[in-house]
Amino acid sequence: MNLLHRRGVLRAAALFPLVVTPAAAQGNDPLPSWRDTAPKRAILDFAAAVTAEGTPGFVAPADRIAVFDNDGTLWVEQPIYPQFAYALDRLKAMAQRNPSWKQEPLFRAALAGDMKTVLASGSGGLQRLIGAALAGNTPEESARLAQAWLAQAKDPKWGKPYTALVYQPMIEMLRFLRARGFQTFIVSGGGVDFVRSFSEQVYGIPPWQVIGSTFELRSSLLDGKVNLTRLPAVDFIDDGPGKPIGIARQIGKRPLIAFGNSDGDFEMLQYTTEGSGRRLGVLIRHDDLEREHVYERDTQVGRLARALDAAPHRKWLVVSMKNDWSRIFA
Amino acid sequence: MNLLHRRGVLRAAALFPLVVTPAAAQGNDPLPSWRDTAPKRAILDFAAAVTAEGTPGFVAPADRIAVFDNDGTLWVEQPIYPQFAYALDRLKAMAQRNPSWKQEPLFRAALAGDMKTVLASGSGGLQRLIGAALAGNTPEESARLAQAWLAQAKDPKWGKPYTALVYQPMIEMLRFLRARGFQTFIVSGGGVDFVRSFSEQVYGIPPWQVIGSTFELRSSLLDGKVNLTRLPAVDFIDDGPGKPIGIARQIGKRPLIAFGNSDGDFEMLQYTTEGSGRRLGVLIRHDDLEREHVYERDTQVGRLARALDAAPHRKWLVVSMKNDWSRIFA
Repeated sequence: MNLLHRRGVLRAAALFPLVVTPAAAQGNDPLPSWRDTAPKRAILDFAAAVTAEGTPGFVAPADRIAVFDNDGTLWVEQPIYPQFAYALDRLKAMAQRNPSWKQEPLFRAALAGDMKTVLASGSGGLQRLIGAALAGNTPEESARLAQAWLAQAKDPKWGKPYTALVYQPMIEMLRFLRARGFQTFIVSGGGVDFVRSFSEQVYGIPPWQVIGSTFELRSSLLDGKVNLTRLPAVDFIDDGPGKPIGIARQIGKRPLIAFGNSDGDFEMLQYTTEGSGRRLGVLIRHDDLEREHVYERDTQVGRLARALDAAPHRKWLVVSMKNDWSRIFA
Repeated sequence: MNLLHRRGVLRAAALFPLVVTPAAAQGNDPLPSWRDTAPKRAILDFAAAVTAEGTPGFVAPADRIAVFDNDGTLWVEQPIYPQFAYALDRLKAMAQRNPSWKQEPLFRAALAGDMKTVLASGSGGLQRLIGAALAGNTPEESARLAQAWLAQAKDPKWGKPYTALVYQPMIEMLRFLRARGFQTFIVSGGGVDFVRSFSEQVYGIPPWQVIGSTFELRSSLLDGKVNLTRLPAVDFIDDGPGKPIGIARQIGKRPLIAFGNSDGDFEMLQYTTEGSGRRLGVLIRHDDLEREHVYERDTQVGRLARALDAAPHRKWLVVSMKNDWSRIFA
């Protein structure tokens, strides 16, 4: 996976202890890990406006929908999406039982750790690998397998479990919005089973408020009982133009607020902020080499270019991890 | 639509005023429209057991999922599913602009009100008609159209709006379970947009807790904005074996409780009650000619045969509208 590390950020690992928020910044502040800069002020202002009863900008609690991308918005996605690291570990464990994989260049590259070839295959190639790695299980088995993997896997840069690499400012944001009557949803390009396996515990978001990419599910009878198994075929890709479709299909309301970090979130922010009345679109920018990663236009994992260019015109907030967050990890 | 009335139940319309629940039956009773018979006792007992902290049967609130079929379980479905009456009205309004429909036997029958032919086409035929009637709209337009129709349409037997023909005992059941920490979901064979257009107001169930059949959604740009439109093609049928798939895909947890009324709910009850620990499956039986309808094995709308036969062996509760409910409509 080091092939992905174009800027050698691994070398910076573990040198920088987490910055501890001063106690003074806590107290009544609902977003203590956000510095008192423009994005925080704009978000507080927006939340105050849409919850002010008796004013023209008031939005009923039933319509307070906030959507969040997951990879790169709520937790780390570099050097490679955690779900893909998981799929790779599963593929390796299953390779013996699937000798035909060795004949396929894509699978051979994945098993050899040749990430350059794998990433060059695009999202279609990634989905094929993930599909093969995670097919055949029931939803319950999928959740158990993912939880077991998450309990022992370590991020290559920080050497910590992935679930410890969620962004503390975003955890505060989820809580802040829920306390103001918002419903919080994850709208992820990742496979929905994987995200659901930790969303409740880590983000306080129940599985039915997680929308993600899906593989086909087959219902059959096994020993006379309903048996659902996941097939390797991709059913729906919840990324890019798929995100508004996933939102309309599963939430059934246009969001008031959308948080994302990459071009895969463009259409979600667009759909959100094109709604009537006041809406909020937010992009998180990975510009903190010391405390997380630096990547933007020149990456295949979380590329941010088109959405960043559109942000000023569309009045999307751009949050700098380096400047606007006093603390990154919990 | 009278062709569906095989038992001439229309003649009984409006002769029987609603039975008013005696004030004595209310007070602390959370289910005042349920008579004190075996099903009510079993449901109260189940709810007490799974919410008793510190006992082996305790289920954490996060896992208290209750699913409800809609047509025939929460509101009337005879003589024809309200959504189909809606689709027929839309088809008639659109017929002038679609002259080719006259060449198609299925559409010609629907426009002529020949329900016998339409029903003989099976669920595939119904879905084709509904798809044609409701295609081309955005989700917002679909909701507005459905709400406008529901505001003026009247049920042919009772001459009342369909939303006034929800079952009061089930409204109480939804509230009862929510007050005990359950999340309530609708899992309907009907089109999800239609059910969502009234579920929040009528059942207190937000759109993202409504699972239903779906038509394909297309995302495109219109005047530079994200534009989602419904295509006529069916995407997913949330009925029969589709119900466990819809549940796994959208809820992500196996329910603890399932309520249904027809063979289309068989697999949902099966999937629910085959889960580990104590589970509850309930069938509502339409056996009250005076206060609602009588239908069971011999109908194409809400047929109940296989599930009823399986109920004793599977320990599903069977609720008689006639004997177990003191009041039917709100």
